[in-house]
Amino acid sequence: MIDIQQLRVGDRRTLAKAITLIESTRADDRAAAEKLLEQVMPDTGQSLRLGISGIPGVGKSTFIDALGRLLIGHGQRVAVLTVDPSSAISGGAILGDKTRMDWLAVQPSAYIRPSPAGMTLGGVARRTREAILLCEAAGYDVVIVETVGVGQSESLVAEMTDVFLLMLLPGAGDDLQSIKRGVMELADLVVVNKADGDLMAKAGVAVADLQYALHLLRPRLPGWETPVLAVSSRERHGIEAVWDRITAYRAALSENGGLEARRNQQSVDWFWRETGELLLEALRADPSFRREMAQLQEQVRSGTIPASVAAARLARGYASLSWPG
Amino acid sequence: MIDIQQLRVGDRRTLAKAITLIESTRADDRAAAEKLLEQVMPDTGQSLRLGISGIPGVGKSTFIDALGRLLIGHGQRVAVLTVDPSSAISGGAILGDKTRMDWLAVQPSAYIRPSPAGMTLGGVARRTREAILLCEAAGYDVVIVETVGVGQSESLVAEMTDVFLLMLLPGAGDDLQSIKRGVMELADLVVVNKADGDLMAKAGVAVADLQYALHLLRPRLPGWETPVLAVSSRERHGIEAVWDRITAYRAALSENGGLEARRNQQSVDWFWRETGELLLEALRADPSFRREMAQLQEQVRSGTIPASVAAARLARGYASLSWPG
Repeated sequence: MIDIQQLRVGDRRTLAKAITLIESTRADDRAAAEKLLEQVMPDTGQSLRLGISGIPGVGKSTFIDALGRLLIGHGQRVAVLTVDPSSAISGGAILGDKTRMDWLAVQPSAYIRPSPAGMTLGGVARRTREAILLCEAAGYDVVIVETVGVGQSESLVAEMTDVFLLMLLPGAGDDLQSIKRGVMELADLVVVNKADGDLMAKAGVAVADLQYALHLLRPRLPGWETPVLAVSSRERHGIEAVWDRITAYRAALSENGGLEARRNQQSVDWFWRETGELLLEALRADPSFRREMAQLQEQVRSGTIPASVAAARLARGYASLSWPG
Repeated sequence: MIDIQQLRVGDRRTLAKAITLIESTRADDRAAAEKLLEQVMPDTGQSLRLGISGIPGVGKSTFIDALGRLLIGHGQRVAVLTVDPSSAISGGAILGDKTRMDWLAVQPSAYIRPSPAGMTLGGVARRTREAILLCEAAGYDVVIVETVGVGQSESLVAEMTDVFLLMLLPGAGDDLQSIKRGVMELADLVVVNKADGDLMAKAGVAVADLQYALHLLRPRLPGWETPVLAVSSRERHGIEAVWDRITAYRAALSENGGLEARRNQQSVDWFWRETGELLLEALRADPSFRREMAQLQEQVRSGTIPASVAAARLARGYASLSWPG
């Protein structure tokens, strides 16, 4: 059982237990998780939800460590969650490794949680969305969701946060324009990391190139000019300027109810996606369709009928049963 | 109406009409499309299904043009389809633009089809899977599915082809290791393009770097050492060596029924994904749930209940109706 009072006062052990509960796939845990989420719902929504993405080695952890230091210095509480494709593939979590965030890992005002291992990327994302709510109920002011630039993880994170920050390395030159074109469109803010030492000059070129490239794209928030900022996470230079732009973006988004509208739309999209997944789970567990499913699956496997035709037949049979007319 | 005899003899206008039919979302077209697919099913499966991915500017079109020239020279017929995220975002198709494949575009033995515009990426992928079957029914020996290195498009293409070829540029150096880590795991074959002129030396370095990086990854096919080959698509150097490795891979995969097993698994996965999508479509169109859906969606939108809880409630209500016990 989760002690909701302890969660509300921000007890980290209770928060950790609560997140473990929502990550569980056992039916009774799932029922308890749903009850818990419903109870804490009025305490959620007050945080700034910040998505951060970048390739391995770009320095996300060092940046989050430096940003966390700044925020905790301002008296804020910071949670770090991860949507980690490597956890789905290898069963181990690369992101959210506390040892990669030296300073933050030992702060009482910080909470770091790696991805649940052994789940599909979709499963990780489902649980991370719920974990954001729990962190908010526990009073965290900033919830950072970190991901790596692989597959669909970036759009999943953009769909669960208020602000999406893309982190890049200097020196990749013109290639960046095209390499990151698809993800660049998701970015509300671009940060060029490692603007220090030998890479200083290259970072300046990268910023200019990126500013040019971003001019060609339509920002997610109309009227917002996606800023490109150079930072050195290692030397903790430029971190405050990034935070200023993040809060400026949030303020611009909040005008005219834009933040609320974005979050509401994210929730509705999540609702339908989750409903679809649950319907398929219910059908697959339904004994009255067991024989038909096995037959159709076998016909599909053997190439007798196309998958889309078999799917239409199965879904029609199931859906018509549920429609009593 | 599609003339199946004309399709079977490889008439390109009939093939184009058939693909237009399966891309249609109208209910009567959908019924006709399912019937057509079921009828042609015995004529499918004989082609080599080749997925090709790479960032914009890597030279995919030039490579496909050169590869197509080689294959047609061998007396083979070549179809090129695309899974194009830009078509979902902008409504226009960047990939599969025939003007980018000068030579191939005017060959009677080639068929080039851009992505359907205005569909989601998932919708594009659904229809591309069906288009592969139609191309096979029309007697194409090699079906190339081209995509750009953005979001989940690469894994979608890997899931519908026999061989997945990743195309890279020389000169990105060490970064490649990390940048492409997630996609590299999908590759059965890596090709470094533009190994000509000034980039010749850089291409050699890139090949060595990539060979090293690939040693660290587990190939999709056990025992297969993912080859890295340098080519100049523009000068048409190295194309034949790539084709040799593609057919070698297909041969290795075919041993012990591996090709059949992979295709069967792809079909079964597609079947379940499609079923899930159709179930959700059916629920959303079901008038007896209209009020509950509207209420739940409003509660989710206003933040009264968490999306996952609302989804569980809706799915349970719908699924229990379909379960007459």
